[in-house]
Amino acid sequence: MSALGVSPAVAEDQVALASPFLKCLVRLIRAQDSYGAWEGKTDAELLAPFIITKEQRRAIPIIGDPDPDVLGRLDMFYTAVGLAIEERCGLMASPIMELSHEGFGRVLFTAGRLVALSKTLRDVHRFGFETLRKLAQAGMKMVGDAIAAIEAHPEVARA
Amino acid sequence: MSALGVSPAVAEDQVALASPFLKCLVRLIRAQDSYGAWEGKTDAELLAPFIITKEQRRAIPIIGDPDPDVLGRLDMFYTAVGLAIEERCGLMASPIMELSHEGFGRVLFTAGRLVALSKTLRDVHRFGFETLRKLAQAGMKMVGDAIAAIEAHPEVARA
Repeated sequence: MSALGVSPAVAEDQVALASPFLKCLVRLIRAQDSYGAWEGKTDAELLAPFIITKEQRRAIPIIGDPDPDVLGRLDMFYTAVGLAIEERCGLMASPIMELSHEGFGRVLFTAGRLVALSKTLRDVHRFGFETLRKLAQAGMKMVGDAIAAIEAHPEVARA
Repeated sequence: MSALGVSPAVAEDQVALASPFLKCLVRLIRAQDSYGAWEGKTDAELLAPFIITKEQRRAIPIIGDPDPDVLGRLDMFYTAVGLAIEERCGLMASPIMELSHEGFGRVLFTAGRLVALSKTLRDVHRFGFETLRKLAQAGMKMVGDAIAAIEAHPEVARA
């Protein structure tokens, strides 16, 4: 128990949930809640499908097309990265994704004429993170890399 | 009949077929001919599926998913644009395409960290050109635009 009276794992989750990236992601998820069905849910509950343990990950088959729910989460994750980039530097970074049926592909973030970020995707079937902290870190790392690229080439990013 | 004894339409096709872009496209198509079944075919015959008249175009329904053959041709067209860019400037320009089931989307060409070309796609169901000349012109225009962008930002294109 920490000084705040919560366990370290819970405290860690709270720090993660306060990160600008997870705030973006939660906002995106809540924006899809047209009928208010999730109003009573906490942020952690809404993000639960993004969390998978090592054992769960291993149990997901990588045969056949990735699950549409997984593809939806992948899409939301990268859209949130784009939103968080825009929040930090004011430039819109739009993701474009190319994915094979085998779960391999790549995602690019472009700002103006600049490729702010390029990432190879693999094992999309098993997309997920062990903890909220790892989810937040993965997003913030991508945002940071994109911001660094934009700062290195500001005139191209505004072209 | 021109001085060469061919009709203007045939002469126009011959000029188009000699363009670097159509040469790239034909090379790509022939590369898929694993069993030599098309060896006896002329370049114009191989490119025939890319040519559709105004009447044919109007007759193609835009309801439902685009035909897989059309998607294959779209892919080949943009791959050929990428190849022709590489031929002209030595930098690989790789296309990435995002397409909705309704036949709308966009295609980006990136060279290094530069977005060399970005194009919106629409009415993909009806992808095709009226003549070989128009096919060649469409490709060469895209190659020219991409080269201009690369020349304007050489250091980003090499990043």
